[in-house]
Amino acid sequence: MSKLLIVGTVAFDAIETPFGKTDKILGGAATFIGLAASQFNVDSAIVSVVGDDFPQEYLDLLTSKNIDISSLEIIEGGSTFFWSGKYHNDLNTRDTLATELNVLADFNPVVPDNFKDADVVMLGNLHPNTQMSVIQQMEQKPKLIILDTMNFWMDNTLTELMEVIKHIDVITINDEEARQLTGEYSLVKAAIRIHEMGPKYVVIKKGEHGALLFHDDNIFFAPALPLREVFDPTGAGDTFAGGFAGYLAATKNVTYENMKNAVIHGSNLASFSVEKFGTQRMKALERGEVNKRLHQFKTLTQFDIELS
Amino acid sequence: MSKLLIVGTVAFDAIETPFGKTDKILGGAATFIGLAASQFNVDSAIVSVVGDDFPQEYLDLLTSKNIDISSLEIIEGGSTFFWSGKYHNDLNTRDTLATELNVLADFNPVVPDNFKDADVVMLGNLHPNTQMSVIQQMEQKPKLIILDTMNFWMDNTLTELMEVIKHIDVITINDEEARQLTGEYSLVKAAIRIHEMGPKYVVIKKGEHGALLFHDDNIFFAPALPLREVFDPTGAGDTFAGGFAGYLAATKNVTYENMKNAVIHGSNLASFSVEKFGTQRMKALERGEVNKRLHQFKTLTQFDIELS
Repeated sequence: MSKLLIVGTVAFDAIETPFGKTDKILGGAATFIGLAASQFNVDSAIVSVVGDDFPQEYLDLLTSKNIDISSLEIIEGGSTFFWSGKYHNDLNTRDTLATELNVLADFNPVVPDNFKDADVVMLGNLHPNTQMSVIQQMEQKPKLIILDTMNFWMDNTLTELMEVIKHIDVITINDEEARQLTGEYSLVKAAIRIHEMGPKYVVIKKGEHGALLFHDDNIFFAPALPLREVFDPTGAGDTFAGGFAGYLAATKNVTYENMKNAVIHGSNLASFSVEKFGTQRMKALERGEVNKRLHQFKTLTQFDIELS
Repeated sequence: MSKLLIVGTVAFDAIETPFGKTDKILGGAATFIGLAASQFNVDSAIVSVVGDDFPQEYLDLLTSKNIDISSLEIIEGGSTFFWSGKYHNDLNTRDTLATELNVLADFNPVVPDNFKDADVVMLGNLHPNTQMSVIQQMEQKPKLIILDTMNFWMDNTLTELMEVIKHIDVITINDEEARQLTGEYSLVKAAIRIHEMGPKYVVIKKGEHGALLFHDDNIFFAPALPLREVFDPTGAGDTFAGGFAGYLAATKNVTYENMKNAVIHGSNLASFSVEKFGTQRMKALERGEVNKRLHQFKTLTQFDIELS
């Protein structure tokens, strides 16, 4: 079985949407990535850090999904990373109410020996130096390194970010971040600039407007499934990335052609993630409903024009 | 050959975008609809009105595209409808600088006898009473009546708009307008509400984010082609509608399955329209480049996941 190494936050989130609010619940990029990837036939491990306030119940959830958490460090007396946000009425924009780094401030990722030959490495949104450290610990060049990042690192650690970007194969980034990183408004032009920075594959996430995959002159587009209700967008991007990475690892095929399928699988899983608060929907997700919705993706986009 | 009746404005536009500005150039919904529909094998006629300031050159252009303009009324001493707008940097929003109705203020559409049995009727954005008058003049029930409208009529003539909506088959509307018309944020819910108002088919245009086609429980999505440059979005929605209507008329097939193809053809033509100011690109558009771009649409969205 292929190995997928996941590095990212494991966190507490407190979320407010127009539909309700939560106390501290399970969140974090690595959590969403791991839950999504667990839909595929892959050995995955999470490298991350939490405090000893992190409930056993959450650890058990990850383990129950066959995620190796032996490198999820638990800091005695430490507090788990905490993020709190409030979504606006359109759910497309949000205000961050609190970011408490806590144990994440001194996070030094240690890749376990049995994952130093991982086939696919998924670097969740973290300080670029932390992401770089993981790449340097790999003993065998992974088939694919995927990196997610955000505007915060562009604002504050651009040099470090540009360095790590040189060493990866796929970047996942949202549309506004792609524009910020490149100074190009056209996403086609932005992707060309990002190719020049290193990544052979560029995934631009547009939230409810879908996702674009760029490779050389090729463009593929996956829509987001139009939903009756979007309840909580938190973790949708990470769920997308986890589905993308998990599918590529499980199929052992990192070609552009297969990456199109990976984008569809990622979008499919993200469409579930937003239906309930936090990880609630992903936690209980079953193969049958996942397959059913893949059919919906197919009917949503496939057409039959005879081309001359 | 099928007959397509087009009712809408024929106008002067003055446009300012981040890339430049124009003096008064050829514009109007019926103009863009007619030019797009002329890509298909269909007999079309435009019912509209202009002043005697409207240049012969523009009339000749329409005629050269085999559009019947015998019911394009020319008012002696009248001035042609004029719209002027300035696009913001993102090209997604614009300010209207001037709207001079002129001869449009007293426009009384007269459907020519030889188009009272048109197969498809495309009602461009106009006062709902004007749209209704056209429907009432048809001697034979058209296979399909398509209506485009905008927020202005929702604000000012909602009762009249709701009445005409009862009598049409397809409405094309943008996402914000769908939300305004229904009070639903979710486009899936908005489409359900609009179905209840009459139209069996709802097309929601999302500009650079593509277009959705709704019919009962079915949803189809066509992306907009990601472009290196978007030069001028004016007329993109009408070009889309013209391609949609023209394809359906030419293929004499108004089923949902064929409407998917029509949405792709409409999106394809709109992707050209935005590449130059006004009608410049559509005027010179050739079959070969249209077909080539259809291939791009196919590679943009088609994927090969084996479904179980």
